[in-house]
Amino acid sequence: MTTNRLIYLPLGGAGEIGMNAYVYGYGAPNKERLILVDLGVTFPDMDTTPGVDLILPDMTWLMERADRLEAVFITHAHEDHVGAIAHFYKSLGAPVYARAFTTNIARRKMKEHGHPPESVRTVSAWPEQVKAGPFTVGFLPISHSIPESAALVIDSPKGRLIHSGDFKLDATPMVGEAFDPDLWAEVCKGGVRALICDSTNVFSPNPGRSEKDVGPAIEQLVSDAAGMVVATTFASNVARVKTLAEAGQRAGRSVVLLGRAMQRMVEASVETGVLTDFPTTISPEEARDLPRETVMLLVTGSQGERRAASAQLARGKYRGLTLKEGDLFLFSSKTIPGNERGVIRIMNQLSEKGVDVVDDSNGLYHVSGHANRPDIERMHNVVRPQMLIPMHGEHRHLREHAKLADSNGLQGIVAVNGMMIDLTGNAPKVAEYIETGRTYLDGSVKIGALDGVVRDRIRMALNGHVVVTVILDEEDEPLGEPWCDLMGLSETGSSKAPLLEVLEADLDQFLKRANAKTLKDDDKLEEALRRVARQTAQNEIGKKPEVSVVISRMR
Amino acid sequence: MTTNRLIYLPLGGAGEIGMNAYVYGYGAPNKERLILVDLGVTFPDMDTTPGVDLILPDMTWLMERADRLEAVFITHAHEDHVGAIAHFYKSLGAPVYARAFTTNIARRKMKEHGHPPESVRTVSAWPEQVKAGPFTVGFLPISHSIPESAALVIDSPKGRLIHSGDFKLDATPMVGEAFDPDLWAEVCKGGVRALICDSTNVFSPNPGRSEKDVGPAIEQLVSDAAGMVVATTFASNVARVKTLAEAGQRAGRSVVLLGRAMQRMVEASVETGVLTDFPTTISPEEARDLPRETVMLLVTGSQGERRAASAQLARGKYRGLTLKEGDLFLFSSKTIPGNERGVIRIMNQLSEKGVDVVDDSNGLYHVSGHANRPDIERMHNVVRPQMLIPMHGEHRHLREHAKLADSNGLQGIVAVNGMMIDLTGNAPKVAEYIETGRTYLDGSVKIGALDGVVRDRIRMALNGHVVVTVILDEEDEPLGEPWCDLMGLSETGSSKAPLLEVLEADLDQFLKRANAKTLKDDDKLEEALRRVARQTAQNEIGKKPEVSVVISRMR
Repeated sequence: MTTNRLIYLPLGGAGEIGMNAYVYGYGAPNKERLILVDLGVTFPDMDTTPGVDLILPDMTWLMERADRLEAVFITHAHEDHVGAIAHFYKSLGAPVYARAFTTNIARRKMKEHGHPPESVRTVSAWPEQVKAGPFTVGFLPISHSIPESAALVIDSPKGRLIHSGDFKLDATPMVGEAFDPDLWAEVCKGGVRALICDSTNVFSPNPGRSEKDVGPAIEQLVSDAAGMVVATTFASNVARVKTLAEAGQRAGRSVVLLGRAMQRMVEASVETGVLTDFPTTISPEEARDLPRETVMLLVTGSQGERRAASAQLARGKYRGLTLKEGDLFLFSSKTIPGNERGVIRIMNQLSEKGVDVVDDSNGLYHVSGHANRPDIERMHNVVRPQMLIPMHGEHRHLREHAKLADSNGLQGIVAVNGMMIDLTGNAPKVAEYIETGRTYLDGSVKIGALDGVVRDRIRMALNGHVVVTVILDEEDEPLGEPWCDLMGLSETGSSKAPLLEVLEADLDQFLKRANAKTLKDDDKLEEALRRVARQTAQNEIGKKPEVSVVISRMR
Repeated sequence: MTTNRLIYLPLGGAGEIGMNAYVYGYGAPNKERLILVDLGVTFPDMDTTPGVDLILPDMTWLMERADRLEAVFITHAHEDHVGAIAHFYKSLGAPVYARAFTTNIARRKMKEHGHPPESVRTVSAWPEQVKAGPFTVGFLPISHSIPESAALVIDSPKGRLIHSGDFKLDATPMVGEAFDPDLWAEVCKGGVRALICDSTNVFSPNPGRSEKDVGPAIEQLVSDAAGMVVATTFASNVARVKTLAEAGQRAGRSVVLLGRAMQRMVEASVETGVLTDFPTTISPEEARDLPRETVMLLVTGSQGERRAASAQLARGKYRGLTLKEGDLFLFSSKTIPGNERGVIRIMNQLSEKGVDVVDDSNGLYHVSGHANRPDIERMHNVVRPQMLIPMHGEHRHLREHAKLADSNGLQGIVAVNGMMIDLTGNAPKVAEYIETGRTYLDGSVKIGALDGVVRDRIRMALNGHVVVTVILDEEDEPLGEPWCDLMGLSETGSSKAPLLEVLEADLDQFLKRANAKTLKDDDKLEEALRRVARQTAQNEIGKKPEVSVVISRMR
C-alpha cells in the first residue's frame, strides 16, 4: 500500500530573486494532485541574456503533468509572481485564482494573449476558501509594496501550510490592509505544518519601517521645491504613488502620471476600489502650459530602464515635457542590485541639465516591501510552524533564513529550484531532484536557456564574427577564392593591411595547399578553415573571433 | 602682445570615475608648455563595451602637441591613474615622474611593453621638486588606499596650484604617511591659486574613518573562525592586506597570497621599503597539506572579476585549494557600482558550498580611501584656494562639489573632460572645448570608441546575425540560390520550418523577381536583401536581426 505524501517543489524563485513558481502536491507518489503558487518572470541583462525580452521559468515538468494540476494561485500582482501567467495559460490549462486587484492585472495580461477574462477568478480575502483537489486554499491579507498582497493558507489532509508570499509587517501601509497579528494568530492557532517564507531581507538587521514613515519627509521635500518636481518609484507601489501625489497636491501642484505602468496601476487600483481618493491628475499636454513650479510628475523607470519615462526625461523630452536647471528629481526607491549603472546614468544626465537629484541614500524617502530579519523572526513566532522552508531568495538568503529558523528551534531546510521536499513526516526531507531551468522569450519565440542561441550572441559580442564562404566545384576543387564577412572586428591589425584582405589571402593559401581528403570532407574543411581564420586574426588583432564557415558545393 | 595664460584641461577623469588624465599648461595661447598629471585606464563592461580589454583616454589632442609636453607626473599607482602609461609612452615621448612605490609599479608596466626602466624617474616626497618647463612640481604626501599617494604642488608663473590626487584625511593609515595638516598648512600659507580636488565621496555625509579602525574587528573575526579563512580586498590596499595578514598571523594561521596582483603589490611594497614587517607567507602548495583551520588566504577579486582568485575559489579549485562547509570568506571591500552582479554570484556560489560570507554591510571591515564631504571641506579650509576645480568624479559629483565650494565661499566651476579652463584671472573661465573620448584596447589593437566596432558587437548580441550570400553571373543574373548563415537566432519560428530555410526561400523569391536595375547595383541589391531578410525574421521569430550581405559577381 502506498502512503500519500505532501510535497513542495519550487520551479522558480528558490535560489534566485525572480520568476516565482512553487508547486504543492498531495497524493500517492508521482500521482499527487497539484496546485501552483505564482507564475512570474525575471528580467534579462546584457551580461547573461543579451537580446532576450523576458525570462520565464521552465515549466516542462508541470506541463507534462498538467492533467494533475488543479489550480494556480497568485499571491500578488508583481511581475515576478504574475508575469508569466498568460504565457503558460494554455499549456497548463488550470483555473487561476487571485484577489481582485491581482485579478485585474492578471486579466490584462491574459487579454493581451487573447485569453478570456474568466481565465482568472477573483477570490475574497480570508475566510473565503477555494477547493482545489485535496487542497483548500484561502488568501490571508498581508502587507507588502502592492495592494492586496496575500499569504496563502493551504489546507491539506496532512495539515495546514502557510505560504507567506512577499510580505512585510506594516501596521500602517497607507493603502490596503495592515498586518493583523490577531487574525494571523487565529489562523495559526490550530497548528501549522510548514511555513514557506519570504527570505529577501534576511540580511537586513533592523526592524522594517512602515510605508507611513516616508510621508512627512516626502511632503517636506516637495513643499520646499522651487521648480518642477519629478518623482519615480515602482508603479505597483500604489501606496507610495498616492503619498507622492498627495504631497504634490498639498504643495499646490498638478499631478501628472507618466509611463504606461504608472497609469495602468492607478487605473487598476481605482477600478478595484483599492484606491478611493487619489488626487486628480492632468495630462502631460495640460502640464506643458502650466508654470513648472505648479507641476509634479510621477514617472516610471526607477530602476534606470532605458525606455521608461525617467530615462527619457533624463535624455531629453518625454511627451513634450523637459527638465531644466532648478527642477528636482526624487528617486523614492531602492536600486535593485545589477541596475546601478542605469540609475547612475540617469542621475548624471540630470546633473548635466542642472536638475537636483535626491535619492534614498539618507533613508528618508523609501521603505522596503519585505520583512527584515527581526520581522521574519516575528513571523516565525506568530505562525510557529513545525517546519520552515525559506523561499523567495538567492541561495545565500535561503541558507541564512534556514540558519535563523534553526536558531529559533524550527526545522528548516534549504530547498532550491528543482528540489522536491516531502513535508509528510516530522522534518522536511528531499524526495527527488527535478530538472528545472529558464525559458527565454526572444521576440515572439521561446528558446531554452541551454539551446546555445544566447551563448552564441555573447560570443559574438565578446569576440566579433567572421563568416567564411568557400565554393567548391564538382571535383571538390575551390572555385575562385574564399571570401569573408566581418562584423564587430577592427578593420586593420598589426600588418596595417585590411584584416579582411589578410584573412582572405591566408584562407586562399590554405585552400590551394589543402589535400583532397580535407576538401572532400565538410567537417574537416570547416574545422581547418576556422582554425586558419582564428589564427590569422590572433596574429593581426590579438583576438580569436567566432567563425562561421559556409561551404557551397556545385553538385 | 599676447599674454601668457595658465590652463587646466581634463582629458579623462572629469565626468567619470576612471581613466584620469589632466593637462596643465602655461604660455601664450596655443603655445602653452604642458604637463600631464596621471594617465589611467577604465574597465570595460558587457553593457557598453563587450569584448574590449581596456579603456584608455583618447590622447589625440596631447599626442598632436607632444612637442609641447614637458613631463608626466603620476600621483599614485592605482590603475585609473597609471594604467595607460605604457600604452602612450612612445607617442607622448615625455619623461614620467613618480614616487618610489608608484615608479616600481609603473616600471613593471613599461617593461611589459618593452620600454626601459629609465622611462620612469623617482622623485622624493616634498620638498623635492622637479622643473618641467614653466612649472615646478613637488609630491606632497597624502593618505589614500595605496602606499605613497601624493598631491602635486604645481608652481607656475601665475602662482601655486594644488592637485589633490585621490585622498582621504587619515591620521593613522597603518602603511605610509599620515595626513600632515601642519605640512599642508605650511605649503599653502603663501596662497594657492587653485585646488583641483578629488570629488568621489562628496555625497558621503559623515567624516571618513581611519584605516586603523578596521583592525580590531578583522582580528576578532579571524580569531573566532573555525575553518579556513579567506579574505579579499584590493591588492593595492597594502595597509589592508597587512592588517589582514597580521590578523591571520595572530590567530596562528599561515598566510597565503593568491592572485598575481596580490603578490605584485606586496613585492613592490617590500622592494621600495614601504612595507617592512609583513608576516611570512607560504605557497598554496604548502597550504594544501596544513589543517584548514591554520590557514588564511588573501586573495584578489573583491569586485567579482571572473578570472580572479575569489571567483575561481567560489567556482571550485584554485591552485589546488578548495573551500568547504565551515570556512569563512571576508569581503574587506566595497562593491563598486556596476560590479554587484559579479560579487553576488560569488557570494551565492560560496553559500552553496556552505561557506559563511561576511561583507562590509555592517561597516566593520572596510573604510573608503576617499575623503567624505566633511573631509573635503576640511581640505578646502586647509588649502584656502582662490579657485576650486572639482575632479575625479562623475558629473553629479563634480556639480555637488562645486556647489559645496560655493557654499564655502570658493570660486568653483564644473569642468568636464575636454573643457579647457583658464585659471589666469580671478575666477576660472572656460577657454575652449577640446574633443575628447575613449580609445578601446581590443586584443592587440586600439580602436576608437566611435569606430562602430563595438556598436556592431552590441547589435549582434541583441539581435543575432544573418549573413546573406548571393552570387551573380556575368549577366548580373543570380547564379543558383542565395544562402544564409545564422548565428544567435532561434532555429525555428512561427511557421515551424527552420528559419534558415524560410529565409533562403524568401530571398530566392525576391531575387527571381528583382529587376535588372536592382541586380546591377550592389548598394540597392544589398539594401533590398537586408530588408527581405529582416522582414522574414520579424514574421517568423518576432525580431529583426543584423544582416550582412555578401554579393559576389562572376566577372
